[in-house]
Amino acid sequence: MSTPDFTTWSRETATQVETALTELLPASRIAPARLHDAIRYSTLGGGKRVRAMLVYGAGALTEAPAERLRIAASAVEMIHAYSLIHDDLPCMDDDVLRRGKPTCHVEFDEATALLAGDALQSLAFQLMSEYKLADEPAVQLKMIQLFAAAGGSRGMAGGQAIDLDAVGKTITLPELEFMHILKTGALIRASVLLGTHCGKSLPQPDLDRLDRYAKCVGLAFQVVDDILDEEGDAATLGKTAGKDKAQSKPTYTSLMGLADAKRFSEELLADSLQALSTFGPGASRLREIADFIVHRQR
Amino acid sequence: MSTPDFTTWSRETATQVETALTELLPASRIAPARLHDAIRYSTLGGGKRVRAMLVYGAGALTEAPAERLRIAASAVEMIHAYSLIHDDLPCMDDDVLRRGKPTCHVEFDEATALLAGDALQSLAFQLMSEYKLADEPAVQLKMIQLFAAAGGSRGMAGGQAIDLDAVGKTITLPELEFMHILKTGALIRASVLLGTHCGKSLPQPDLDRLDRYAKCVGLAFQVVDDILDEEGDAATLGKTAGKDKAQSKPTYTSLMGLADAKRFSEELLADSLQALSTFGPGASRLREIADFIVHRQR
Repeated sequence: MSTPDFTTWSRETATQVETALTELLPASRIAPARLHDAIRYSTLGGGKRVRAMLVYGAGALTEAPAERLRIAASAVEMIHAYSLIHDDLPCMDDDVLRRGKPTCHVEFDEATALLAGDALQSLAFQLMSEYKLADEPAVQLKMIQLFAAAGGSRGMAGGQAIDLDAVGKTITLPELEFMHILKTGALIRASVLLGTHCGKSLPQPDLDRLDRYAKCVGLAFQVVDDILDEEGDAATLGKTAGKDKAQSKPTYTSLMGLADAKRFSEELLADSLQALSTFGPGASRLREIADFIVHRQR
Repeated sequence: MSTPDFTTWSRETATQVETALTELLPASRIAPARLHDAIRYSTLGGGKRVRAMLVYGAGALTEAPAERLRIAASAVEMIHAYSLIHDDLPCMDDDVLRRGKPTCHVEFDEATALLAGDALQSLAFQLMSEYKLADEPAVQLKMIQLFAAAGGSRGMAGGQAIDLDAVGKTITLPELEFMHILKTGALIRASVLLGTHCGKSLPQPDLDRLDRYAKCVGLAFQVVDDILDEEGDAATLGKTAGKDKAQSKPTYTSLMGLADAKRFSEELLADSLQALSTFGPGASRLREIADFIVHRQR
């Protein structure tokens, strides 16, 4: 059986995750139906599933069972979906368009969107504790711990708080980087580590290398997001383009200029690949994902 | 050493939980400072700590180590605090007063309140996975699973969704009960079971009895809340009184009348004590808590 190329693999992975989420999320007919509708509306049917790809890519390196990766990838995508629902709310970014369709609070209402996000976070932790994700339960507890830390006040939620606080302010590049390491980087890092821990255990230096890879791709993801937001239009992005500039949010392109931001994204790609240099072919998917993150068009 | 009476014990327990939360929540000086301020503002300094008492009371029955109960009680109170923050938001109950002080979004802002709730939920799961709560890691995973289920769309968040949907509608007593079993009951039930699992393992029939106890006190808690809301004033309750009626939310008093609601709360108390009848003195605190829940004045 030949190894599928990256385009095929990423499409198959996205399909697997979509199927998993369809099965794992509560059905719309279960009460409270409107809440479950909102959860499914916002989690299914879209997105690049980059975080899920990272779970699967890291799991390939440690030969992790597919069933474990299915659960971990779904949990990560649930946390991502919850963060987008809350991020789009009027008191946050006040966005009306996401993945080419109305945001959750526009399609439903604000209260339902708030609770859909809250329930998705609970559900992600329920999955992470209900299914077997590691040979040793103690390892699984560690996985839940790093997953929870990635979402918290010194992770994703903290990054969003700093982001909001930065609107209309002049911030420095290190401040911008700190914000993004929390806001986007923490969950991307967790995706890589969760996928890794689903399989054979690795020595600490290898885990450190994967962590460095994850930090680089996490930051690259954000830099490229800023570049695409600067260059793009709503039709390609599936969300409101130029929004950050209009809200005078600090971005890599506004702080560095477009050309330097592009150079920076290439440097981060090179660094991420360098971090994987000792791994051999087991890390091929992770290398391809890094390349995809930096060279994607949306 | 004599056993302290219930008033002393409950005061000591509340103090222990307050100290634990003070230590376990991120310090205000840690970035993002405003988010951590909001988290501490909304979690510390108040509340009856009924859920924490249930954790400790159930732990007394299974001779659970104090350190485990400290963590489990703190995690439960964090989830409770997050639910109150989100429940008070303008898109939900739009309340300005909580525990006698301005609600989180009034004291800070809506976005900060939203993120403070989100981060508190993450932090609760971080605690539950970081500290040792059971002899066997596999038992601890089960604890996290039941804790997550209690907060999710078929637990607390689901109950809130049904509650919102019921505003201004005529609903039946069974529908009201279903709503409260999710909204308040699920986390109260989780508090009892988490406290129990922190100690010696019990046979399934005993766990079922504790579950029945928890369901009765959970429902009693809500019935008494409705009675107090009907009778009380803001000074005693520390929150806006008569609010449910003003929002034409269905309550036990509006559906049953005040006298029948009081009788119902006494029946639930009797049922909860009946469920504990085989347990002996180890369950004394749980009995006292049930009595406190039904006969409290605020």
